[in-house]
Amino acid sequence: MSNIYADRLAALRGLMRSRGWDAVVLTGSDPHGSEYPAARWKQVQWLTGFGGEAGDVVVTGDHAGLWTDSRYFVEAGRVLPGTGFELHKTRIPGAVPIPQWLAEKADEGPFVVAVDGLCQSVASVNEMLSAGGEDFRVLDVPDMLDSLWYDRPSVPSGTVITLGEEMTGESREDKILWLRGCIAEKGCDAILLSALDDIAWLLNVRGADIPYNPLVVSWLLVSLDEVVWYVGKGEPDADTADSFAELEADGITIMPYDEAALDLAQHQGEGISCLWVDPSSLNYHLSSALGQSLLKAPSPVPLRRACKNDTELEAMREVHLEDGLAMERFLFWLERRLEYGEPVSERDAADMLGMLRARIPGYRGDSFETISAYGEGAALPHYVTPEDDAPVLEQRGLYLCDSGGQYLYGTTDITRTIPLGECSRLEKEDYTLVLKGHIALARAVFPKGTAGCHLDVLAREPLWNAKRNFGHGTGHGVGTFLCVHEGPQDIRQNTNPQPILPGMVTSDEPGIYREGLHGVRHESLLLCKELGTNEFGTWLGFEVLTLCHIDTSIVVKELLSGDEIAWLNAYNRRVYETLSKRLDGEVTAWLEDKCRPL
Amino acid sequence: MSNIYADRLAALRGLMRSRGWDAVVLTGSDPHGSEYPAARWKQVQWLTGFGGEAGDVVVTGDHAGLWTDSRYFVEAGRVLPGTGFELHKTRIPGAVPIPQWLAEKADEGPFVVAVDGLCQSVASVNEMLSAGGEDFRVLDVPDMLDSLWYDRPSVPSGTVITLGEEMTGESREDKILWLRGCIAEKGCDAILLSALDDIAWLLNVRGADIPYNPLVVSWLLVSLDEVVWYVGKGEPDADTADSFAELEADGITIMPYDEAALDLAQHQGEGISCLWVDPSSLNYHLSSALGQSLLKAPSPVPLRRACKNDTELEAMREVHLEDGLAMERFLFWLERRLEYGEPVSERDAADMLGMLRARIPGYRGDSFETISAYGEGAALPHYVTPEDDAPVLEQRGLYLCDSGGQYLYGTTDITRTIPLGECSRLEKEDYTLVLKGHIALARAVFPKGTAGCHLDVLAREPLWNAKRNFGHGTGHGVGTFLCVHEGPQDIRQNTNPQPILPGMVTSDEPGIYREGLHGVRHESLLLCKELGTNEFGTWLGFEVLTLCHIDTSIVVKELLSGDEIAWLNAYNRRVYETLSKRLDGEVTAWLEDKCRPL
Repeated sequence: MSNIYADRLAALRGLMRSRGWDAVVLTGSDPHGSEYPAARWKQVQWLTGFGGEAGDVVVTGDHAGLWTDSRYFVEAGRVLPGTGFELHKTRIPGAVPIPQWLAEKADEGPFVVAVDGLCQSVASVNEMLSAGGEDFRVLDVPDMLDSLWYDRPSVPSGTVITLGEEMTGESREDKILWLRGCIAEKGCDAILLSALDDIAWLLNVRGADIPYNPLVVSWLLVSLDEVVWYVGKGEPDADTADSFAELEADGITIMPYDEAALDLAQHQGEGISCLWVDPSSLNYHLSSALGQSLLKAPSPVPLRRACKNDTELEAMREVHLEDGLAMERFLFWLERRLEYGEPVSERDAADMLGMLRARIPGYRGDSFETISAYGEGAALPHYVTPEDDAPVLEQRGLYLCDSGGQYLYGTTDITRTIPLGECSRLEKEDYTLVLKGHIALARAVFPKGTAGCHLDVLAREPLWNAKRNFGHGTGHGVGTFLCVHEGPQDIRQNTNPQPILPGMVTSDEPGIYREGLHGVRHESLLLCKELGTNEFGTWLGFEVLTLCHIDTSIVVKELLSGDEIAWLNAYNRRVYETLSKRLDGEVTAWLEDKCRPL
Repeated sequence: MSNIYADRLAALRGLMRSRGWDAVVLTGSDPHGSEYPAARWKQVQWLTGFGGEAGDVVVTGDHAGLWTDSRYFVEAGRVLPGTGFELHKTRIPGAVPIPQWLAEKADEGPFVVAVDGLCQSVASVNEMLSAGGEDFRVLDVPDMLDSLWYDRPSVPSGTVITLGEEMTGESREDKILWLRGCIAEKGCDAILLSALDDIAWLLNVRGADIPYNPLVVSWLLVSLDEVVWYVGKGEPDADTADSFAELEADGITIMPYDEAALDLAQHQGEGISCLWVDPSSLNYHLSSALGQSLLKAPSPVPLRRACKNDTELEAMREVHLEDGLAMERFLFWLERRLEYGEPVSERDAADMLGMLRARIPGYRGDSFETISAYGEGAALPHYVTPEDDAPVLEQRGLYLCDSGGQYLYGTTDITRTIPLGECSRLEKEDYTLVLKGHIALARAVFPKGTAGCHLDVLAREPLWNAKRNFGHGTGHGVGTFLCVHEGPQDIRQNTNPQPILPGMVTSDEPGIYREGLHGVRHESLLLCKELGTNEFGTWLGFEVLTLCHIDTSIVVKELLSGDEIAWLNAYNRRVYETLSKRLDGEVTAWLEDKCRPL
């Protein structure tokens, strides 16, 4: 019985033998360290069939392994049998990371590891080199799969659009001026932006190269007197040509994407003696091509981008109102369909929500793949709703929907869990305890300088008190018509020292997951705001951007404090008052009922 | 008008000129990186008169500066005028650290900085070297002040005692065996312990070389087949001689303290090819003498020491009962004295408490200098109670007492704040909000793996909600008849990833400080314990070791939740039930009243 992935593995091993490579390492990332790569760079998926977001592959003459974390153990167990690949679990006790695994393999003499340097971070190669011994070599073979992967997609070249100052609140000229200040302050001549969201934000451009993320695959060089965008990929369409013309009129040079390495090296020869690069998104191949005169330091863009300006915040408020209307229409539709006894599958529900969002002016697609999960499906935090034969919703238990939209004027991300009928005591308790955590973070008051990792426990404490917990972070940064996951801040049990600052938009999404039973998650986006200054410092808190009621029908009231009940009632009242004037009479009446004080 | 410190500064500058040094750097630490140094190493105090626990000095031809943090700005401002030293504030925005300050000074050519390498960490010298330019040199001049400081105390040689297994729960043989396992695991031949509490714990010895800390100034080499203790300092007294004989009988070689560098170098020549050292406590002088074949990594001792064994925990419970009896007798005495209208100063109170502790069997001294602070004095978290003319307590407002004892079988640290009469609304609110934070941390339930930095906010949230805060950590580790401040865990707004683990003893001491008005702090010691395992992980919580009632008379009851009131009543009931049988009738009756449920 032949398996297409086993065939591909055999072909790769043939290539390895002919080239004299002892091992090949491939990652699931792209040349820009993106969280979601375009199809061209789904090399791990092509080779193994594994489609999880985190997965690296090592192939030697006698072993083929896929390294991934607990989120994807089930998926890996499903797809790997027959491929010749074995699962290596990461982030568990006793896990052997790739560099150490390779070093052990290489124990007996000269050992050559081929990597696709375009999709490998500088840091990851350095880890391999320092774990390996004297005879351990890493060979950079960019696009090594090209000779095997005949129909490999090309570098994407989706339409590029520009956003005006009325949407971004700051012109690209002003942003470039600010960045040049940063460059000068660092004592450098230029910076190379390699993270795609850094580039999109700075140039006020958006693209369609990567699903769910409105980014343009490119590099950007900003020196004290020049801006070069390495982006051209053949003949641009009309809209893209307009965008390029607008940027050229602003003094920005457009160069082919493929010529970046060569042109950057030439710039270095002609006067750029210190080039600032961000090692977290610069790949090994380009780093090697750029040689020694690099200042490796985090890009200054993420922090500035994360602190949204007033124009962006007004747009974010507006987009959350529109998105909230779609959510309420969706929840109304769902309840009615079930009441009328009409079958609704998880997929039907996701499609209806997508359709309602698509009607919103400025809609550009979803911000990630909608998680529409009923009952035990919701117990998987990273559940993928099947395209076909998706489970059908019944009039009991909990339904969880985690979704978001990309709009010209902002990005949303919301999770609501709703009862579809009778719920167990455990479902009600879990629902209420997660809600307590959600409210605690949303209500938090904290001094300026507080990091997200120091706030995280607020969302967990009500669960911890009942000896319950959840295995993911509580909050991630969200862009404005940019990535739904963005840094530099987050709220989780890590040691990220980045303070939560005014203007930052961060999710608040505690949950609980019980295998084979149910899952609960409550998620809204929080805007950090100043609350004034006194002798103890400057105080910050949150405004909830997300506008969609939280169901109170299965709340265990005695588990909530008076303050928590007051917060919940005030939130639902605000949702009703803000949305009701824009909804049909029938939906308004339904929402009024949903928002009745507890 | 002559100032003794100005004279000393002039003498030091004379030495600098004769030796050709451009700058001198001196620290307030000892050759072991101790928090509290013995008198011999109070070089900064000798030179400047400044006695704060954190202070470094830089002297050049035209400038003399003392670098210290906000805890000591007031003290520095009081003692420095007339000495020739200027205050350099650290940990404030715009602060210039010593390495950068020196680098700027050295801008114009060759520059020689003399340091006392014995009292300078390797890390601090490296920071100077990397900030300075090509012509910047650091010269190691051990004990450089010797030629000026005629009556400088010698290396301390207090009596050394040993503790039996019935007190420590583990013999030194077993501890050495365990340490040898760690050495082998690291692929080393030997470890050099340089932190004094590491050595005292491993050898089951205690000393009297440093005030408040029962440590022996020494180094300890543990190789796979040898243990050498560099400790002898001339003729030992009878008890010390007994201790040395006991250790020698256990196969431990006793060598003179001063010969450590020479003997270690000889060991390196004779087969120790990889010596494990801890850079956080190894000084620059010794590190230089030991040359290159060093593995620099944290010592494994602190984590093992922090997780107390059952024998130690039983002893800690016992010592807290005795200490609690002294505290209750003290508070009773104080209240009666004030009722009878007899004057009590902060100093009188501290002395009485010290006297009551001294009666406890096994008492070996206080674990730190008692902070006995009334009214606005308590607004300084690091208040030093004056020896003479200390403020007199009045029958109104708040009195704060932070104190602890060293006993043969354990160490205590407790703070109670009590009303002496009428209190303002603000005092009552502050008292209650700090108590809420104290209770929240004490009641915390958390999964194994949680770091102290992730729990810290629990103790702050009630204050933050009222836009109040405190500027110190919430908790520090506490030893068993060892240092009252010990690592590796703590509970504060840092990014220390060390989890709080079963057997660890950590303080819980939120506070609030209002300049010119009052201060509040509630501190008990918490023992981390397992609470069982379920599908979500292993759960941990705390047992309060400290046994002394918390005054409820000024609690603002409506600020406490039902759970908080229940916790407070249960704690006070436990204090009463545990202590009352050991107290006099009059004190028992008084305590019963104090412990009445709120």
